[in-house]
Amino acid sequence: MADTSATETVHLTDIEIAQAKDLQHIKHIAQKLSIDEDQLEMYGKYKAKLPLDLIDETKVAQNNLVLVTALTPTPAGEGKTTVSIGLTEGLNAIGKQATVVLREPSLGPVFGIKGGAAGGGHSQVVPMEDINLHFTGDFNAVEKANNLLSALIDNNLQSKTANLNIDPRTILWKRVIDMNDRALRQITIGLGGTANGIPREDGFNITPASEVMAILCMATSFDDLKERLGNIFIGFTFDKKPVFARDLKAQDAMAILLKDAIKPNLVQTLEENPAIIHGGPFANIAQGTNTIIATKMGLSLSNYVVTEAGFGADLGAEKFLNIKSAYAKLNPKCVVLVATIRALRHHGGAPKEAYNTPDLDRVATGFKNLEKHIENVRKFNIEPVVAINSFISDSPEEVQYVIDTCAALGVQAVVSEGWAKGGQGTKNLAAAVVDIVENKATQYRPIYDWNSPVKEKIEKIATEIYGATKVEYSKKAQLNLRRIDRLGFNDFAICMAKTQKSFSDNDSLIGRPENFTVTVREIEIAAGAQFIIPILGKMMRMPGLPATPASEGMSIDNQGIISGLS
Amino acid sequence: MADTSATETVHLTDIEIAQAKDLQHIKHIAQKLSIDEDQLEMYGKYKAKLPLDLIDETKVAQNNLVLVTALTPTPAGEGKTTVSIGLTEGLNAIGKQATVVLREPSLGPVFGIKGGAAGGGHSQVVPMEDINLHFTGDFNAVEKANNLLSALIDNNLQSKTANLNIDPRTILWKRVIDMNDRALRQITIGLGGTANGIPREDGFNITPASEVMAILCMATSFDDLKERLGNIFIGFTFDKKPVFARDLKAQDAMAILLKDAIKPNLVQTLEENPAIIHGGPFANIAQGTNTIIATKMGLSLSNYVVTEAGFGADLGAEKFLNIKSAYAKLNPKCVVLVATIRALRHHGGAPKEAYNTPDLDRVATGFKNLEKHIENVRKFNIEPVVAINSFISDSPEEVQYVIDTCAALGVQAVVSEGWAKGGQGTKNLAAAVVDIVENKATQYRPIYDWNSPVKEKIEKIATEIYGATKVEYSKKAQLNLRRIDRLGFNDFAICMAKTQKSFSDNDSLIGRPENFTVTVREIEIAAGAQFIIPILGKMMRMPGLPATPASEGMSIDNQGIISGLS
Repeated sequence: MADTSATETVHLTDIEIAQAKDLQHIKHIAQKLSIDEDQLEMYGKYKAKLPLDLIDETKVAQNNLVLVTALTPTPAGEGKTTVSIGLTEGLNAIGKQATVVLREPSLGPVFGIKGGAAGGGHSQVVPMEDINLHFTGDFNAVEKANNLLSALIDNNLQSKTANLNIDPRTILWKRVIDMNDRALRQITIGLGGTANGIPREDGFNITPASEVMAILCMATSFDDLKERLGNIFIGFTFDKKPVFARDLKAQDAMAILLKDAIKPNLVQTLEENPAIIHGGPFANIAQGTNTIIATKMGLSLSNYVVTEAGFGADLGAEKFLNIKSAYAKLNPKCVVLVATIRALRHHGGAPKEAYNTPDLDRVATGFKNLEKHIENVRKFNIEPVVAINSFISDSPEEVQYVIDTCAALGVQAVVSEGWAKGGQGTKNLAAAVVDIVENKATQYRPIYDWNSPVKEKIEKIATEIYGATKVEYSKKAQLNLRRIDRLGFNDFAICMAKTQKSFSDNDSLIGRPENFTVTVREIEIAAGAQFIIPILGKMMRMPGLPATPASEGMSIDNQGIISGLS
Repeated sequence: MADTSATETVHLTDIEIAQAKDLQHIKHIAQKLSIDEDQLEMYGKYKAKLPLDLIDETKVAQNNLVLVTALTPTPAGEGKTTVSIGLTEGLNAIGKQATVVLREPSLGPVFGIKGGAAGGGHSQVVPMEDINLHFTGDFNAVEKANNLLSALIDNNLQSKTANLNIDPRTILWKRVIDMNDRALRQITIGLGGTANGIPREDGFNITPASEVMAILCMATSFDDLKERLGNIFIGFTFDKKPVFARDLKAQDAMAILLKDAIKPNLVQTLEENPAIIHGGPFANIAQGTNTIIATKMGLSLSNYVVTEAGFGADLGAEKFLNIKSAYAKLNPKCVVLVATIRALRHHGGAPKEAYNTPDLDRVATGFKNLEKHIENVRKFNIEPVVAINSFISDSPEEVQYVIDTCAALGVQAVVSEGWAKGGQGTKNLAAAVVDIVENKATQYRPIYDWNSPVKEKIEKIATEIYGATKVEYSKKAQLNLRRIDRLGFNDFAICMAKTQKSFSDNDSLIGRPENFTVTVREIEIAAGAQFIIPILGKMMRMPGLPATPASEGMSIDNQGIISGLS
């Protein structure tokens, strides 16, 4: 991530710091987890896939899971990945055996605005170029599995002998590409005559929004993966019968394309601690957390697992706790809420130009955003720690205000200096986390039961987590609800698609909005993932590139050395 | 490849034979090439990427390059890959140090009709599942680099601040996907309002048809790769100025996406001999041979390199000799022409039902196809060997006819039993090849000079190789020729797009057609690859899936074991 924090002593870019690191062969990192070299599938010297049989459910239940989330972020992000990596270094520095478990970056943000997702400064996972580019090919495998199903659907429409009578106007399944490419959002395909298929409307989502990605992140075995892929709901026949991927005999071929992608990837942090990186759904338009398999792998191998869920705690953490942890029976023992003084100023009303200008009043006003997230975490019966991700523009008064105000709420707020100092800058944070895990953790509980009615589940999230007074449903959403009922999908989890910029569905409502309504525009179904996806406001599942794409500033020399990647 | 040959003693499918093989760790294969384990970038235990600095131009010039091509094939293919692998086993079996250098398979045929491209029977490269699926991610990297340029083009059309004034109606650059997906051949993008870009026509080609693939296969270094990528011709501005990828500052980001794809991949044959597999352009719509880098890598490491060029010798071999070898200054010393009795029956007029029925008359009539290919090879100043790829339906009389008729032309024809017997079945073929390489090879010569006029080059291929009496140009092709002249691209190589089913541009003209005209429908430009691409007849650059896609017959179990892949 393009972390914009800095200290006087650090002048290097993220990629320069990463390239200066003398990496350990991945077999040495594996040794720290008691994995024999022979069990690794290496991808070069510094990346490896781990076999699924290393998962040990007894250890999964015994070891300690820590979730890193954040307050409502500014567009640059507040450094959740950086804090997750830094915290892992800190835990190891104070003598705990800790592994960080993260999502894989998407190429879209890498070539767009935000940059990759390998941390920043002295808290990075490496090799950062590989992680931020194709890595071990998992995103490509997801994309190909998704698009094979699309090709099979259009081939069936064209078929004279095996035609399923699918009504092309009802097809909900879209193609995907891991690229910010707005021109593919809405397209017409099958043009040019009878040889080129049946003309119909279609569109591409970005790969992290693919249901195949969601399924990969929920799957617990090949059999489970196949069953979920077969359950993907495509649309209806002309006589209104539902059509699933299994009707096209697609699930095995799709699972074959995912045969390696199902295995988690091992890399290392800058301080040579283990990092498992696997799966990458966005948190605003998908479930926003890495795979269940990767989390269980981490817990099988390591006493502490630090993981992150995307965007603010109203998005990634809500889904991590209500969907992933509930389904996989995980028990996160502590939640780290990442806050920055910059974001608190923003929530206090600072314009972008003033993000880096100390302003205690604005921080005090903006604190309400963090306070609501603290309250929310406690609704899951988990105690939070606040990590103040340090920036040089932070004033001592602002930082002290946050520490004191958190303390008044019974929450420990700790300055996290992982970006500038690595594990040496996060020992206090690590100690605060260990205190909660060892002394204050019990059994977390989700805020809704998957078996309760759909509207009740949606409304619980909207009112309890977002703070909305009520939920309105568009005409389309109401029709969608009836369809969900008719198809028997009521007991699926709710995977909200909502802006990351506000607790509400309105980007401009910063801080802790009150007395607002959220509107469900439409509701998508991801039957393989077992998600109902209410779409709030104008959420798009395919981003665009900025006026000056990040790609323009990148270069590679004749030895293959890259610069300008962030 | 779905090789349909069989003997009574062999009952296993290709994938079963491959899975029964106890693979060597790739470091042991590398040792045979004097490559230290530390120089390998492993992808699992059985695949590795090789660093470019292993290329040694002195050895490239000294060692022996053998090209495997074929007569005009039936739709199932005549087993060129199988013979290439078998011949490599045979060469090693008779004491030569030989490496096979092949193209990577495309997912399109794997899920379509033809199957993968890892050989067949007892002449396969392994692990065949990996090679036929994502392999080391090279195709994905090509696809992403291609589609990043597309996204940058559409983003520029949309841009208010950096707009290059590109006329969307003139954009020649298409998106690609490695899938047989006919519905994407002709599409309309950018629909749905101002946020979604500028509406325009577009289409997807299959990835092996991407100019980025062509460029990767022609590139000799990162700098060369970048320069070629920057030279990609996109279209025109509204005031008719040409626009290149470099105008969008795309070349470095595209090269970054190709940073690993530029390195050749090492795997093994079933008899544990080295196989280098790299790049995968189709031979009917692109140049049809692996990368220059891979061929040079093979020649740097091995005394004999056996390589193949796609489809019949009028396509892959013509391009291998006039484009690749001419540009890279390679000197192929022997050409192996693969023939099957089945294909000779076909060229003698046998209907598909009679392909496996002995018929000496039809073989004798069909021989004219092979004879023309023999004549063509000699035009390049290279001596051919004919490999009769053995099938159980071959009658001794038919086989003897081919041997005798070849002998009358001064050509040795040898039965190749690599499919059934591996290297033990190809020793005679290997001996025949060694005889030519050691005793009859001089300096090959291309049949045209890149610096001669475009029409002269096209006509030379059409008359001398295809046997056409003349070439006609559509109105569009004539306009294209004028554009090529105006843009200064006259000295590019000619990369014909023509059906693989006939010497002519008409599928139905089997055997050795005479007194025919070929029609250039249009001419594309691949300025980065330095190709002019005349399109003859109705060539499509995006295949479709068949009525029953191969995907339906594939399965994977809970241990990840695949069946039904061919």
